[in-house]
Amino acid sequence: MTTRKTGRFITIEGADGAGKSTVAARLYDELRTKGWDVMLTREPGGIEIAEKIREIILDPKYVNMDKRTEALLYAAARRQHLAEKVFPALAEGKLVLCDRFIDSSLAYQGYARGLGIDEVFAINQFAVEDCMPDLTLYFDVRPEVGLARINATKGREVNRLDLEALEFHEKVREGYQIVKDRFADRFIVIDAERPADEVFAEALAQLEARL
Amino acid sequence: MTTRKTGRFITIEGADGAGKSTVAARLYDELRTKGWDVMLTREPGGIEIAEKIREIILDPKYVNMDKRTEALLYAAARRQHLAEKVFPALAEGKLVLCDRFIDSSLAYQGYARGLGIDEVFAINQFAVEDCMPDLTLYFDVRPEVGLARINATKGREVNRLDLEALEFHEKVREGYQIVKDRFADRFIVIDAERPADEVFAEALAQLEARL
Repeated sequence: MTTRKTGRFITIEGADGAGKSTVAARLYDELRTKGWDVMLTREPGGIEIAEKIREIILDPKYVNMDKRTEALLYAAARRQHLAEKVFPALAEGKLVLCDRFIDSSLAYQGYARGLGIDEVFAINQFAVEDCMPDLTLYFDVRPEVGLARINATKGREVNRLDLEALEFHEKVREGYQIVKDRFADRFIVIDAERPADEVFAEALAQLEARL
Repeated sequence: MTTRKTGRFITIEGADGAGKSTVAARLYDELRTKGWDVMLTREPGGIEIAEKIREIILDPKYVNMDKRTEALLYAAARRQHLAEKVFPALAEGKLVLCDRFIDSSLAYQGYARGLGIDEVFAINQFAVEDCMPDLTLYFDVRPEVGLARINATKGREVNRLDLEALEFHEKVREGYQIVKDRFADRFIVIDAERPADEVFAEALAQLEARL
């Protein structure tokens, strides 16, 4: 199978609470209105094999799942989502917006969980072949800001467990900084601490400038 | 987690019909009788997460599973079987006999299915880390001989489908030749076309000479 694509492949990255999914949905609507043939997706994206793999990853009874097993399963689900959904859309010339992709694995598993960015990249290269993103919108937010937003949505205060999690999310952000420097040619960094409308407007402007 | 082992890790490889599993069972009995603390295993080996992954691989309804997804799932199941069963046994100083391991993936997925030996090795290196086999007993048999044996067991003649499969099994054997040359320091090639007792006797002698 060739994975060579004629469409555009745009990924959306950042920590939880950065507002990624909200912006992604607005970008999808706006780009469609402007006449682009857009597909918005997010792994496992309704692809049955990928959904089955995710079920294993997320099953709370598998507390003894090894971190490397988990990283390989994410790469497997990624491959199948690409093969069944993204490659065909790109082959039809679509603009594909994907909410989280390879850089999430590099920042979370590779850096924050300590498996190594190079090692996690190696298994993901096997999964994606030449289908790296053309552009990546990275929504940058300090962990305490992202966390406060998530808690506001849930109507609760920051608690002790949240503070323990902060350290992990600091590492995720450091991981994204490293990944962004490595793939500087495709990364667009957007300050996501501003009001939602401003963040969306900049994301749209940056994207249109490159399309 | 460190995977560094104090025991011995012996893998058993070869095509179907080479007599691997029969010899493995006899080696297990013989080595135990001689006082070795032996574990005989075979992926997924009763490890629940690995079994679940295998169920996805083998589910006949997933006809559209991508070859790379499959290779990543095999590597994930391999990792979990190592983490839960092989690493602990090696840490206790056991001699672990494993019926099929990384070289099967290299010969079948890497070479015969055309994914590339180097590429399949990369994802498997992630899975096994420094836990490569200390020794590999490779049972070599021409595909037509292996096939005739399997058919004899089932009480039937070689048919047209078998002959089509022969071409694939020729490729598997070529793949094993390449893998054997790459890992010449740990490969012991055993001519498995001889009578079962002779094959077993040579496997035992070769193994004892290196233990």
